[in-house]
Amino acid sequence: MTNLEKWEKLSQKLDEIAAYGRTIGKLQFDMECTAPEEGLEQAGEDMAIIGKQIFALSHDKEYESLIIELHEDCEGLTPVQKKAIEHLYERYAKEKNVSAELDYEMSMASNKAYVDWLTAKKEKNYAIFRDSFEKLIKLTQTFIDLRDEKKETYYDTCLDEYEKGGSIAQLDAFFAALKERIVPLVARIKAEGKPIRDDFLTRPVPIPQQEKFSEYLLEKEGLRKTALVLRTTEHPFTTHFGANDVRVTTHYYEENFISNIFSTMHEGGHAMFMMYEPKELYDNHCSDYMTSAMHETISRFYENIIGRSEAFVHFVMPKLRELSGDTFDDVTERELYEAVNIAEPGLIRMEADELTYGLHILVRYELEKAFVNGEITVDEVPAIWNAKYKEYLGLDVPDDEKGCLQDVHWSGGWGYGYFPSYALGNAYGVQILRTMEKDIDVFGLIQEGNLIPIGDWLKEHVFSIGSLTTPDEWIKAITGEAFNVNYYLDYLEEKFTKLYELK
Amino acid sequence: MTNLEKWEKLSQKLDEIAAYGRTIGKLQFDMECTAPEEGLEQAGEDMAIIGKQIFALSHDKEYESLIIELHEDCEGLTPVQKKAIEHLYERYAKEKNVSAELDYEMSMASNKAYVDWLTAKKEKNYAIFRDSFEKLIKLTQTFIDLRDEKKETYYDTCLDEYEKGGSIAQLDAFFAALKERIVPLVARIKAEGKPIRDDFLTRPVPIPQQEKFSEYLLEKEGLRKTALVLRTTEHPFTTHFGANDVRVTTHYYEENFISNIFSTMHEGGHAMFMMYEPKELYDNHCSDYMTSAMHETISRFYENIIGRSEAFVHFVMPKLRELSGDTFDDVTERELYEAVNIAEPGLIRMEADELTYGLHILVRYELEKAFVNGEITVDEVPAIWNAKYKEYLGLDVPDDEKGCLQDVHWSGGWGYGYFPSYALGNAYGVQILRTMEKDIDVFGLIQEGNLIPIGDWLKEHVFSIGSLTTPDEWIKAITGEAFNVNYYLDYLEEKFTKLYELK
Repeated sequence: MTNLEKWEKLSQKLDEIAAYGRTIGKLQFDMECTAPEEGLEQAGEDMAIIGKQIFALSHDKEYESLIIELHEDCEGLTPVQKKAIEHLYERYAKEKNVSAELDYEMSMASNKAYVDWLTAKKEKNYAIFRDSFEKLIKLTQTFIDLRDEKKETYYDTCLDEYEKGGSIAQLDAFFAALKERIVPLVARIKAEGKPIRDDFLTRPVPIPQQEKFSEYLLEKEGLRKTALVLRTTEHPFTTHFGANDVRVTTHYYEENFISNIFSTMHEGGHAMFMMYEPKELYDNHCSDYMTSAMHETISRFYENIIGRSEAFVHFVMPKLRELSGDTFDDVTERELYEAVNIAEPGLIRMEADELTYGLHILVRYELEKAFVNGEITVDEVPAIWNAKYKEYLGLDVPDDEKGCLQDVHWSGGWGYGYFPSYALGNAYGVQILRTMEKDIDVFGLIQEGNLIPIGDWLKEHVFSIGSLTTPDEWIKAITGEAFNVNYYLDYLEEKFTKLYELK
Repeated sequence: MTNLEKWEKLSQKLDEIAAYGRTIGKLQFDMECTAPEEGLEQAGEDMAIIGKQIFALSHDKEYESLIIELHEDCEGLTPVQKKAIEHLYERYAKEKNVSAELDYEMSMASNKAYVDWLTAKKEKNYAIFRDSFEKLIKLTQTFIDLRDEKKETYYDTCLDEYEKGGSIAQLDAFFAALKERIVPLVARIKAEGKPIRDDFLTRPVPIPQQEKFSEYLLEKEGLRKTALVLRTTEHPFTTHFGANDVRVTTHYYEENFISNIFSTMHEGGHAMFMMYEPKELYDNHCSDYMTSAMHETISRFYENIIGRSEAFVHFVMPKLRELSGDTFDDVTERELYEAVNIAEPGLIRMEADELTYGLHILVRYELEKAFVNGEITVDEVPAIWNAKYKEYLGLDVPDDEKGCLQDVHWSGGWGYGYFPSYALGNAYGVQILRTMEKDIDVFGLIQEGNLIPIGDWLKEHVFSIGSLTTPDEWIKAITGEAFNVNYYLDYLEEKFTKLYELK
């Protein structure tokens, strides 16, 4: 067989694996958005059976041989195909010692943990989740033990899993820089920040109107309606089944209309990345390899850099007034802008402001690092969580629903090591913004409500190479220099100093 | 291996097949209720791949051997297990000559036909559907040719497929009886029926209120909320993934609120049957073997016998008033009862009244019989459809959306031969009603809004044996006598004579 024939053969197998991948993804989506309560258990079992088949297909001897052989010699393949082989080989090397039984066990455990998490959160009863949680952590460690390539600790492996090259050493430094400049800034705001009006934020906006607003925002972001689905879930997320079927979920609270706005903007950002990778990447099985921090860069770019800008508030204000009747007649644009940027420690990460957000991640980072590396047990998690919220954010956590059960992440296999991506994404985003501004008038465009050129710029410079690069290479290629956290910290300092009229 | 060991082994395999079955069902549900337009093609391809796997699992040599061996000797199995083997063997015998390739082709063709049908209907352009339609019919014939057991014609096989024992001879006689008594009745109503007020039927009822009404009705029917999903589709349907995950779809038209009511009642009836077969049948792979006429018996029992009764109108009127404000303040119960029973030929089967419904089925029956047996080509279908609507219902069909493209059935593989089930179901239902009335005060209970004892009676006498009997056996077991169409025709004559105050 020539290399090209090998590629063709591999490609067919990848098509089948992809079909199963989309299938299990749709089962998951169904479980989260549609299935009735009584159907969840069966649904989890069915997903495990499909997962078993994916495992079988991707551990088929011929499939593996093709990857190994093309990894050794890929002469004649296009650069994108070569990169696809690189990704596939990496995955193969990581998983080659994992048995079908163990993989099935992880799949079953994840599904059970998700159901248990849902119940535990609903009933504010951590004990319901405890055993599943412990089992998932143990399984994660077992998986890591089976790898040939060893990192310093379990959690270093988790970090590298999401961000190639990531490590505790790197993240410790990153969070140290954040703490050094954000903590004093939060303190200054508390001490000398001007008061910001927020009485109108709890005024009710009917859910059907909020739904319309979400649809409007997603369209404005530049997402194709014919390839997009919008649904409601407890914890918003975005998923996709190819570039032509992208699904965003959000949540609506009648008395917290801005929650939905920023959740929609955020998920819409993920959706942009999913919908607009270059076709060549899709066609050559080399799409969807961007890291999670890259993904969060885009989601938080739309949520914060765009969404929480004064320009954006100017542009959406008329639509908000149209959809909400006279609810906000006495509110100025400036007041809304200030209100959506109130920097004040809160309990819920999803509702956190741009400034204190990093502190929420810090809590999770420190906890994950400890429980994944076996330094604390799952029984200690709620208390330590609460203690850290007291220490970093000065808040008392009333129950685990608003505490360590608030996020979905820890209820999924391989859910550990993801949280830092959010904080990294915030920082990457500002560095990219500064480059983008050299080409286009970003905030001028936002002010006009024309987000299309921003999306186009992202497509050309950012989406185009996400699946082909590591985070370091990516930032370098886009901005011409290495990652520098100071762009982000400067941006925060400037924005919040002005907003709160600090001296 | 003992027979019991064989059963256990087979049972495991059936579990896996069932998991794939639910999976493909959920993919289908997703396609109809969730997936965006651009995602449909890929979704169809993915379903075909899962279908291929189901085919492989259910044509596995060991699986087949177990069925064949247990069919020969099933000593020691329970009666339900024995019945399951009987069903499985029957399916095996029907499919044993079908290749994986042909099965895959049917699956692909069905998915394509569904997409084409949707587009064709939307664009009122039959030509878009034509080729897929022709291909499906050819494939149906090919499948039938491969069977060992031969029926008189292709369409006889289709009928027997849905109703064991059904044939053109039987159906010709059935429809002849209907024509003989219904056609003159319709004529008498036209000539001497009193006028019925219907001005209020097009008064707008907001869709959110209609949604709430649907939820209310489904709960009243006796469906468990925790195992039920309600969604919206073009063509309402009900499906399920085990007894704990039953899904009903309906449609809402702001200016036709009764359409949703009867669609919900109908689909809710299907849902009852799906949710309440005995657990022993589920656990022994012997559920869901009821025929489609049995299913339609129940759906049309809830839609017509219950839903279009005066007792039912009395019971739901307060809820309707509550949800619709003052919209129907000037309408009496009697006026609503009469209005939902107006017997007047219309173009749309789904909106047809209880009396003329059979004529819609007659058109489809005669067309199916002709095109499945190759007596007419697909190019002739629209014109013949239109001619028959003129002849039997006296109506001109303005376009194919309201004509031969109105129903989903012909766009699915094995969708031919189903329509007669609706008409048979109507007739079975009345015979069952007459028996039920010996045990409970059916219309008294409906009047009180207490449908639970009706559901319980159906569970005990009707749902319990559906998967264990042929239609003839079923009716005999429930009512103590053979099927007799006159119960139904008497019921119609009595109801509509009174309603229209005919002399």
